[in-house]
Amino acid sequence: MSDTTEPAAAAKRLDAADELAPLRSRFVLDDVVYLDGNSLGALPAHVPDRVADVVRRQWGDLRIRSWDESGWWTAPERIGDRIAPLVGAAAGQIVVGDSTSVNVFKALVGAVRMAGDDRDELLVDATTFPTDGYIARSAARLTGRTLRPVSPAEVPAALSARTAAVLLNHVDYRTGRLHDLPALTAAAHAAGAVAVWDLCHSAGALPVGLDEHGVDLAVGCTYKYLNGGPGAPAYLYVRRSLQDRFDSPLPGWNSHAEPFGMRPDYEAAPGALRGRVGTPDILSMLALEAALDVWEGVSVAAVRAKSLALTDFFLECVTAYVPQGLVESLTPAAHEERGSQVALRCPAAGDVMERLIARGVVGDFRHPDVLRFGFTPLYVGFADVERAARVLGEVLAG
Amino acid sequence: MSDTTEPAAAAKRLDAADELAPLRSRFVLDDVVYLDGNSLGALPAHVPDRVADVVRRQWGDLRIRSWDESGWWTAPERIGDRIAPLVGAAAGQIVVGDSTSVNVFKALVGAVRMAGDDRDELLVDATTFPTDGYIARSAARLTGRTLRPVSPAEVPAALSARTAAVLLNHVDYRTGRLHDLPALTAAAHAAGAVAVWDLCHSAGALPVGLDEHGVDLAVGCTYKYLNGGPGAPAYLYVRRSLQDRFDSPLPGWNSHAEPFGMRPDYEAAPGALRGRVGTPDILSMLALEAALDVWEGVSVAAVRAKSLALTDFFLECVTAYVPQGLVESLTPAAHEERGSQVALRCPAAGDVMERLIARGVVGDFRHPDVLRFGFTPLYVGFADVERAARVLGEVLAG
Repeated sequence: MSDTTEPAAAAKRLDAADELAPLRSRFVLDDVVYLDGNSLGALPAHVPDRVADVVRRQWGDLRIRSWDESGWWTAPERIGDRIAPLVGAAAGQIVVGDSTSVNVFKALVGAVRMAGDDRDELLVDATTFPTDGYIARSAARLTGRTLRPVSPAEVPAALSARTAAVLLNHVDYRTGRLHDLPALTAAAHAAGAVAVWDLCHSAGALPVGLDEHGVDLAVGCTYKYLNGGPGAPAYLYVRRSLQDRFDSPLPGWNSHAEPFGMRPDYEAAPGALRGRVGTPDILSMLALEAALDVWEGVSVAAVRAKSLALTDFFLECVTAYVPQGLVESLTPAAHEERGSQVALRCPAAGDVMERLIARGVVGDFRHPDVLRFGFTPLYVGFADVERAARVLGEVLAG
Repeated sequence: MSDTTEPAAAAKRLDAADELAPLRSRFVLDDVVYLDGNSLGALPAHVPDRVADVVRRQWGDLRIRSWDESGWWTAPERIGDRIAPLVGAAAGQIVVGDSTSVNVFKALVGAVRMAGDDRDELLVDATTFPTDGYIARSAARLTGRTLRPVSPAEVPAALSARTAAVLLNHVDYRTGRLHDLPALTAAAHAAGAVAVWDLCHSAGALPVGLDEHGVDLAVGCTYKYLNGGPGAPAYLYVRRSLQDRFDSPLPGWNSHAEPFGMRPDYEAAPGALRGRVGTPDILSMLALEAALDVWEGVSVAAVRAKSLALTDFFLECVTAYVPQGLVESLTPAAHEERGSQVALRCPAAGDVMERLIARGVVGDFRHPDVLRFGFTPLYVGFADVERAARVLGEVLAG
């Protein structure tokens, strides 16, 4: 296609009408089209100064006093309460800390224990991000349950009186497919099972509605759409009504009812705190806390609307710029089945992504044949989208 | 005691002869006597610039490329190799990541699995830092073993053909007692048990000799004598000859033989890497990496010699300055039984510590009646020690 005026003009119109466009200035960005925010979010512009203050003043000058005076000790639950509105949770149900994998382990063992001894199966999304499956297998092994991988579509039929818990990804990391959290949670509950969700690829990109839909436990990372920084700590949500029954397999001293009592016997703290484990990684955690400031005044509904507009527009531009048959979208066309990324199947995808990156369009490659493009509504614009599709067309044509 | 010339003069002589004295300039310190480095090490002076570079350039400018280009992906094993010589380990046996509590869990479940099905007991130091005991109880519960808390002195008699593993602290967090790692490890081995050591209060303060003494697994934090920063990630040591048998209860994708293969089946990476779990917390981890630069050219033997000289001198100054009977040392007098801290039992210890801190002498209070003073040989001098004891005498006399 040689006439490129139409998508470019459309991008201009869309950017001009974009209410979220000014948010881009809250981030450090250059002339690269960064479509990998679903892997590592961009740096919020005010974070470096905040981190410098944590290092120089809080650690350097106040040292040990900062556990109280700088609020280090209460950071896991305080930052959890900052994440809560982004995933539709009331305060007091989320703690931040540890990696997603470790939180999957806490959630699944906790779920199995809630479900009781007569339920001997653990269902897990067979297309899940691998770590969820590996950790689920370990949780099943340690609790004497059978792990049963099934596709999310098969979950309703697979649920039974044997099912202890179901672990599902809200958005599939590879295809970008959005799973039906309300319906699948309701199906799990109808079978008497505990519903555990992994929000890594949805939180910060679309409404989750944890409280509204009665999700039991959830985990997520904070370095993708929440822009918390590389390896920023993950979080654990335990629904308020289940907190008293949450029996963590990692009952570290930070989850004790009286942590500084240094008592030999364990007594779990009330509420979300019992999801804590050991000493929190303060530098990473307070970088995340600062990063969450970019959400000030931002509605998740507006983010979702822009996200869908971006992915719709990208698919249109791909149709316009990429000769037919060279790529195939793995991402569902229906809005209700789409996250905030587009996955294109493409021969030699690894090479193609290298050439895209060399030309300033950064997505990522997922084995064996997927080009993955993530759209962060806070800082990606429609002109970025048009350029990405245009460069993709040029690379594939070249 | 009114004549204060003698200890003060001694401090001057000792400081003048201290080969490690110049290292103090590698840290950010003020006129406070900081005797809490056994809780949170002071800030190395060059760390703020290094962290700023990680945030601004590596995250802000390079973004996702830093996983390769800035060496983020290999940080856990690279930094493990930096810690290795400080604890007497050859390279390739330590990975950094997660909290100490999480690493205790990996180590204990791993140890039980190495020990085999016919060994049904887990011995744990009854005077341990609480989190070790809580996590040991969880590991025992999940693996169907019985947890048996015993004092370290009772361990040799308690070992039997039933013992799967023993978890011990190298230095007791409260009293500062140094346990006999070589003898207790040998006793565990003689009984066919796996020896697991917690090095939180010894690494960076005295020689550990993991390889020399045949320790099987070990964990430790990095924010005390290693000065890695608040909540800096902990580490896990798995002896090389046992690595093939280390079967982690937290087999996250970072420990996979081919992590980016995204394969549904788990296959453990070879070597120390199988101690990794999820995405590492890069900001905290790279702050630690920078902090380890202060060890350049420093011998652990010299650190140990100064540590003993500091604690000896502190006990002498306490005798000189504090009226007899007001405090009682819980820390063993014998060098071979002493870590790098002094614990003084004292009525109203909480109040006393507050008054000490108000007068610029920072130690900490451990429930119910312990004043705890940690001596970090890299930056504490003998004049600091003399001042701390003098102020303690004044506070207790006042």
